[in-house]
Formats: sequence, structure tokens, C-alpha cells
Amino acid sequence: MTSPTESTPPSSSIDLRKTVETHWTSAEARDWVTFESTLAEDVVYELPQTRERIRGKEAFLQFYREYPGDWHLRVERIVAEGGQVVTWIHAAVGLEEMYALTFFTGDEEGRITTITDFWPEAYEPPPGREHLVERY
Amino acid sequence: MTSPTESTPPSSSIDLRKTVETHWTSAEARDWVTFESTLAEDVVYELPQTRERIRGKEAFLQFYREYPGDWHLRVERIVAEGGQVVTWIHAAVGLEEMYALTFFTGDEEGRITTITDFWPEAYEPPPGREHLVERY
Repeated sequence: MTSPTESTPPSSSIDLRKTVETHWTSAEARDWVTFESTLAEDVVYELPQTRERIRGKEAFLQFYREYPGDWHLRVERIVAEGGQVVTWIHAAVGLEEMYALTFFTGDEEGRITTITDFWPEAYEPPPGREHLVERY
Repeated sequence: MTSPTESTPPSSSIDLRKTVETHWTSAEARDWVTFESTLAEDVVYELPQTRERIRGKEAFLQFYREYPGDWHLRVERIVAEGGQVVTWIHAAVGLEEMYALTFFTGDEEGRITTITDFWPEAYEPPPGREHLVERY
């Protein structure tokens, strides 16, 4: 008998979407073994708002493990195409609630190679457009 | 002879991606006729950071036409799947440069029905993670 044949792997876009879903659920669960498995060895994490960059799986994992506060994450939307995935997540730390917008790219094995994270903050609208907008 | 058969329309995701590309290029060109054609009549625009909402094509078009400053937009990334498209754009107003992250949904005719816009601003990183990050 020959050894069992592996089934055809799904396309990279399907892989990466699944990886990103696992990335967020394992972060929320503080399941760092699973979380680490979603990352390529040389993953690069960037925060354009602070111009911070973290290189490599070990440092990124440590960044998450050390992140202060009782934070909780929930995926609001996920859009995947080819080797790219975007998520819109709801984050809560105590009473503070925020959104994060995250752009992922992946390798051929469906692991995450780049993560670009945006954390937009609330602000007061500029004057002059009250005639067009409502507040919610 | 029968009348010419129309070719099969592309899927809504392809339609909406094309619409969104046209949306940004026509905004940059101040081609308001084309810009308007990308929008469903009852389009809803939301800015979660200010909790502002604009309802309807006319008001949204006016919002853009009246938007102050010599602004310029350039698409950095676009990710489309099904009836959803996400863009990451680079915006410049004079010397100020920013990113915007925008989530679109569309109708069956490939017109934009909802737009959710995020404008993350630069901020200083919190202390305590200097051992893991570099600045760029």
C-alpha cells in the first residue's frame, strides 16, 4: 500500500482567510501555541500611526503576550482575496471600545507574512458640514 | 436574426471592485458625473470616529463637492470579495498626508450602497514595548 494521499490544498486565499480567523480566535483565547502557528517565521508587523515595526514571530508573539489590559477582540467583517485578507475588528479593554482595521498578506502555506494595523480614534467633526450629516 | 446576445455579466464582486476603482479615480479627477454614477440612490456613508452619517446620493455628492482643501487620493491597496470591497488610500491635503481605510458594500447592479470610512491619525506609542519594536 502507498501512503495516504493528501487532499489538494485549497487556494491561498481560502487558506489565508482561515489562518486569519484562527489568528483572532486564538488571540482572544490566549492560545499562544495556536496563535504562533498562524505566523510565518519572518512575519513583519507594522503600525503606520506610530511608525512602529516588529520583525519576526518571536518578538510579535511576545508583543501580544505582554500586551497590557483585559482586552477582547471580535471580528466584525472579513474580506479575503488572493493572498490578502482585511479584517475590521471590535476591540474592548475594560470600558474602552475601539475598532481596528488590519491588512494581512500570507505565504504559499497560508501563514501570515505581513500585518498592518490601524487603530482609528474618535474625534470631533470639523464644523461646516452639519447641513449634510446626522450624528449616531 | 435575433438581437445580439449580451455577454454574461461579471459577478457582483468584479462589478463592485470596478465601481470602487471608478469611485476613487473620479473623485480625484473631480468628475462628479462619473462619481455620482458609482453610487446607489440610497447610499449611506458613515464615519465611525465622529459618528457622522450621510444618507442619500445627493447629500453625499454635495459633501464631496464642498470638501475643503486641495485634496488628492491614491489607492494603495484594494481587496474585493463578493459584495464587499475594502480600500486603503493615501490622501494628501497640501503637506498633510494620511491614510484612509474604507469598507464598501454594493447592490446587484454594482453600485455602492454603504461606505464606512476610517481616518486613523498619527500618535505617540505607549511606553513599555521599546524592546520589541523599531521605528520607521
